[in-house]
Amino acid sequence: MEQFTIVESAHVVPQRVVTNDELATFMDTSDDWIYPRTGIHQRHVVNDENTSDLATSVANELLAKSGITADQLDFIIVGTMSPDNLTPSVAQQVQGNIKANNAFAWDLSAACSGFVYTISMASALLATKYQRGLVIGAEVLSKLVDWQDRSTAVLFGDGAAGVLLEKTSAQVGLLAESLKTYGEQSEFLTAGHQRNSNYFTGELSQADPYFHMNGREVYNFATRQVPVVLSEALDKANLTADSIDVYLLHQANARIIASIAKRFGQPIEKFPINVANYGNTSAASIGILLDELRIEGVVHDGQRIALAGFGGGLTAGALIIQL
Amino acid sequence: MEQFTIVESAHVVPQRVVTNDELATFMDTSDDWIYPRTGIHQRHVVNDENTSDLATSVANELLAKSGITADQLDFIIVGTMSPDNLTPSVAQQVQGNIKANNAFAWDLSAACSGFVYTISMASALLATKYQRGLVIGAEVLSKLVDWQDRSTAVLFGDGAAGVLLEKTSAQVGLLAESLKTYGEQSEFLTAGHQRNSNYFTGELSQADPYFHMNGREVYNFATRQVPVVLSEALDKANLTADSIDVYLLHQANARIIASIAKRFGQPIEKFPINVANYGNTSAASIGILLDELRIEGVVHDGQRIALAGFGGGLTAGALIIQL
Repeated sequence: MEQFTIVESAHVVPQRVVTNDELATFMDTSDDWIYPRTGIHQRHVVNDENTSDLATSVANELLAKSGITADQLDFIIVGTMSPDNLTPSVAQQVQGNIKANNAFAWDLSAACSGFVYTISMASALLATKYQRGLVIGAEVLSKLVDWQDRSTAVLFGDGAAGVLLEKTSAQVGLLAESLKTYGEQSEFLTAGHQRNSNYFTGELSQADPYFHMNGREVYNFATRQVPVVLSEALDKANLTADSIDVYLLHQANARIIASIAKRFGQPIEKFPINVANYGNTSAASIGILLDELRIEGVVHDGQRIALAGFGGGLTAGALIIQL
Repeated sequence: MEQFTIVESAHVVPQRVVTNDELATFMDTSDDWIYPRTGIHQRHVVNDENTSDLATSVANELLAKSGITADQLDFIIVGTMSPDNLTPSVAQQVQGNIKANNAFAWDLSAACSGFVYTISMASALLATKYQRGLVIGAEVLSKLVDWQDRSTAVLFGDGAAGVLLEKTSAQVGLLAESLKTYGEQSEFLTAGHQRNSNYFTGELSQADPYFHMNGREVYNFATRQVPVVLSEALDKANLTADSIDVYLLHQANARIIASIAKRFGQPIEKFPINVANYGNTSAASIGILLDELRIEGVVHDGQRIALAGFGGGLTAGALIIQL
């Protein structure tokens, strides 16, 4: 076991809510079309914030809730596919904003598996050489959405969430994990192509900020592979599916989650879903869900939980955590 | 100690060489101006490759040199500030290209400290839960260079390099590290600002791919802070500066390296410099240098080496490694 405790969790979403009905005012879509297919009623969209602003708010909340000072942090890792810049990274902006003078900081790029991948990395850092750090998933996906493309525009939202993790001698932390990447299927979900151009060869490829998705392939991928990584992680931990109290899955689509629960032979009640309120917030989604469930008391100390992410890369990953 | 061995190293640069003299044909500059100030004579620039192509070539070389098959890899981490896309990440493209079916993959964003930061993360993964992985630094910086701006265009080059790391029971690996981030100084070196724009609020900020650098501030930062992280890492390892056989520093500028060697009270001969041939290749530079020095026999088993990165973020980091 890699021993750590989740000291605190926090989430932040922009105030501005865009409902399906509002989308229908400028796009050939409707709540009657979107909701049955995705489970989404609304999403949050930034007014004037960028990803580093949302991530900084989460960091400040984590410090305020925990009573830990910025100077006590050893690291800040941000999972994001929508950074403000290629340098500095979002985590480095957060580190500067909160004056975490003893923390190093970097971003991890693994799209919708970002939260699971970052927690795995933070867990290894706490098990080997550091005491305490922030793990944040933060996204402003509204800047990667083509708002003329009704096949993707209805799916995504902005938000950020994170946890403050601390090394502990208690028997809690990461029991096992399974992380997988399927780069041969990367074309099924892409975003943020960066222009490749220089003086000598001219423009090799044009910039294309937007999401491009083969929805059917991603659906098939997720419903097939998430049970695989969950099973593999449970096997490594010598645990059964029944022994998990709550499954926190990346909130891409309510139908994907229902299908995974069914294939996995577990009651849907053990798979909480909040995608109705946020849409798909990529690396932020599991953190938002975790924080809501901790506030509601649905997730609490003493439980054994599973986190599972999946999406762009393509990637998937599952963590089994003893709280 | 986090025990691992560097099984192999490899580096790849694009064939196309751009000399200072060629730059002078379309820019108000000259070799006489550039070389004394930077130590750079030439850089490599892609013909039609992107970052994932260079990184894939490095991965294939590492496999060919080591005789290890792609299936035997547990992870692929790429340090880059010039990814092809925001998703998939470069590491995920490499994973798909080489068919590393058992490896998970993600990118780390820490600019010129990318190589040092990725090795630190890989080291923690090998110490806790995995057997073998690739760590690659890969950059196509020519796409982030404003070729009209002579203050930055002369500095950067394209390239990639990496190492195959394996867990070991031998007394070799990471002795100590010091990683630091200085986000409050992030404005001194920025690149790749991503457009923030959505239907509801319009354009919040415009895309700006280009490097912007306050050269004097970055110079002062590097010459001040690299000795700090080196000293801190040596202190943690209970070692003196004299006990290090070779110092492999990020190759940004020969004058920075000379100044650091002087401040650190170590002979310049222990700080090899190859920036003349490549320019600043960001996350790739230390790996290119390491591979060249291993081929030349200057770096070999039994030595104790120090790696130090510094740059965008701002970030710095030092690793003390027993070979």
